[in-house]
Amino acid sequence: MAKISEPTVRRLSHYYRVLDEVAGEGQRTISSRILAEREGITSAQVRKDLSYFGSFGRRGLGYNVEHLRTEVRRILGLDRRWRVGVVGAGHIGSALLAYRGFGDQGFDVVAVFDTSAARVGHRLGEQVIRDMATLSEADALEMGVIATPMRAAQEVADALVAAGVRGILNFAPRKLRVPREVALRTVDMTMEFESLSFALSQARTPRRRRTAE
Amino acid sequence: MAKISEPTVRRLSHYYRVLDEVAGEGQRTISSRILAEREGITSAQVRKDLSYFGSFGRRGLGYNVEHLRTEVRRILGLDRRWRVGVVGAGHIGSALLAYRGFGDQGFDVVAVFDTSAARVGHRLGEQVIRDMATLSEADALEMGVIATPMRAAQEVADALVAAGVRGILNFAPRKLRVPREVALRTVDMTMEFESLSFALSQARTPRRRRTAE
Repeated sequence: MAKISEPTVRRLSHYYRVLDEVAGEGQRTISSRILAEREGITSAQVRKDLSYFGSFGRRGLGYNVEHLRTEVRRILGLDRRWRVGVVGAGHIGSALLAYRGFGDQGFDVVAVFDTSAARVGHRLGEQVIRDMATLSEADALEMGVIATPMRAAQEVADALVAAGVRGILNFAPRKLRVPREVALRTVDMTMEFESLSFALSQARTPRRRRTAE
Repeated sequence: MAKISEPTVRRLSHYYRVLDEVAGEGQRTISSRILAEREGITSAQVRKDLSYFGSFGRRGLGYNVEHLRTEVRRILGLDRRWRVGVVGAGHIGSALLAYRGFGDQGFDVVAVFDTSAARVGHRLGEQVIRDMATLSEADALEMGVIATPMRAAQEVADALVAAGVRGILNFAPRKLRVPREVALRTVDMTMEFESLSFALSQARTPRRRRTAE
């Protein structure tokens, strides 16, 4: 299989949501046009993405919903459950624990850590907050979430890697160093705002600028 | 100017961070190779992205840091301040208010709203939480953040649009309908986890799969 780019993976996540929805409505086939809708993707892009995985729709009939859903689910690694540990029991950690959607998709938060004595021992959702120092390989975590202040993030990443974690989701606004074999994703809220300010700036100026040229 | 895709905007945000960092270190020129680093981008991609905006490095010398930084800053709409309203004073709203980075980049949270009588009137950061019903055009908000439960999200989006907001950042895990001229970005936490489970699944299986074929 060719190396799949990050934007392709995001589109697969999108297709999976659509497939899940239409499967729930009892629909049996779906066209690439419907899969493309709402995301600013073309039907051609959908067909290209799915052809990577050996899935081909039939002209005029489209894709078989159940088959494609099962396949995308497997490709995204959602056909199994994942053990997730959250480090940092502040606002972001609490927001994650409060969100039931993760469990539905196979992501089980099985441990929450913090270094603050004021937090350790208290409950957060179904978990009792543990001292970060107790994190070990015995926790068998596969994914870790870093929801700590910026200055602690690298140390936490190192501890997660040492405990055997292979995927890290980082909410701290700083670059982290992890070994090559560890997958790292950073959620950068400022970048989301920048995407909006870009869009709004473009909307403001194009006509005026064109006239000036 | 050609239509700029969302991944290009994200790369511009990345370049801006790097440029900001090296400008702070007093560096005067930068190569496309350094701008490409850490993001899995090629130097050719960097040169292509920047050529959209009429910026060309000089072979062997690279780009002028200060010039490029000013230009990317303007393109991203970061050469001005934006009035942002946050709806929902729960975990995510609180996390956003607590993060100082937004102000540094020109995003000023000037109002926070909620519908809960238990929250309205209390302070959150420098803001006093207001009743959602008091949101109006008089607030002159340009961007709105939806950090409410899923079921309230569409109603909040409608209210933000009615109040003149032109850009919305949505943290609620559901699709929203907004007019064409309003920019909408959704932060989908589950999608971030899926990107990790995809990466971890691929790391597990490729060799075995290849042997089986």
